[in-house]
Amino acid sequence: MNKVITISREFGSGGRTIGRKVALKLGIKCYDQELIEEIAKQSGFAEEYIKERGEYMASSGIGAFFGGRDYNGHSIQDELWGIQRQVIENIAEKEPCVIVGRCADYILKDKAELLTVFIHSSMESRAARIVNVYGETDEAPEKRLKDKDKRRKAFYQLYTDLKWGDVRNYQIALDSGIIGIDKCADIICELYRG
Amino acid sequence: MNKVITISREFGSGGRTIGRKVALKLGIKCYDQELIEEIAKQSGFAEEYIKERGEYMASSGIGAFFGGRDYNGHSIQDELWGIQRQVIENIAEKEPCVIVGRCADYILKDKAELLTVFIHSSMESRAARIVNVYGETDEAPEKRLKDKDKRRKAFYQLYTDLKWGDVRNYQIALDSGIIGIDKCADIICELYRG
Repeated sequence: MNKVITISREFGSGGRTIGRKVALKLGIKCYDQELIEEIAKQSGFAEEYIKERGEYMASSGIGAFFGGRDYNGHSIQDELWGIQRQVIENIAEKEPCVIVGRCADYILKDKAELLTVFIHSSMESRAARIVNVYGETDEAPEKRLKDKDKRRKAFYQLYTDLKWGDVRNYQIALDSGIIGIDKCADIICELYRG
Repeated sequence: MNKVITISREFGSGGRTIGRKVALKLGIKCYDQELIEEIAKQSGFAEEYIKERGEYMASSGIGAFFGGRDYNGHSIQDELWGIQRQVIENIAEKEPCVIVGRCADYILKDKAELLTVFIHSSMESRAARIVNVYGETDEAPEKRLKDKDKRRKAFYQLYTDLKWGDVRNYQIALDSGIIGIDKCADIICELYRG
């Protein structure tokens, strides 16, 4: 089995950047945008749709959940989930790597030698970061963060029956706001090397 | 303000051992048994009582909670809490150190430069550890662990209004069963050194 680092993260905590730095240092690949492209290729779904619906429940909650289901109770999101799952399993079978988000920790539970990471940070530190990285919008950053967190959590719980952000599900959890992005990456590399 | 490492831990996860190793490596003191002795000296309570009621709600739950309160609604446990709080504040004021358990993370929030750690481990790994460290009892180890976890959590929530074991409350959380006691200690030392 390949060694795979999975990075779950709160929106705006810098988890993706940490994933990239770790991969660079270890000389392995980091799957984030590449994962979306691969899923798009295999599913025919648009990248924007995958970005949004491969990790987040729709904004309108229950309505979006029950709407759009066929006679067997399957939604388009379920179909996306199936393809995403397959793509992640194939990647992990091929090579050691870093995978950011998309429930990879759950999907690969018995299919790779996992180092499961959770990155979080305070609301203030994340708010500062998203304005910096993604720019201002009409919506207050705190509101954007709360909405993203809520929908990511709901998605995770629907498909994995685990509690997103529960400390017990991760081998290591780090506060990137206090520890710093680079130091987080260093520690993860050290653990990976064993 | 002094640099203080606080270690919160699931029962049987080896958090106390990790605290001792970290302190030894850093050449600072680790307060665990010493804390209990100090609280005993200042309060007149027996060490066994402090060990049990300075971190755990009584077994009988609601009954124990409402029973034993005076006309002002204070219980003996509240009195112990007040003294414990004072002892922890005094220690942190005096020197950099490691403090194991006893809500020190909450008590010292604005009173020390904190590195807040949470140590956890799977039920199986903790069960194996407690039989090894504390010996067999009539009660199954899993039952002992669940009971201890539940009462520690309840205590923490009563006195701190924070959620014990919520990943967001700790700068670093580690699975000692997978990562190993020594490696956990190494990582904490590295973070402390900055």
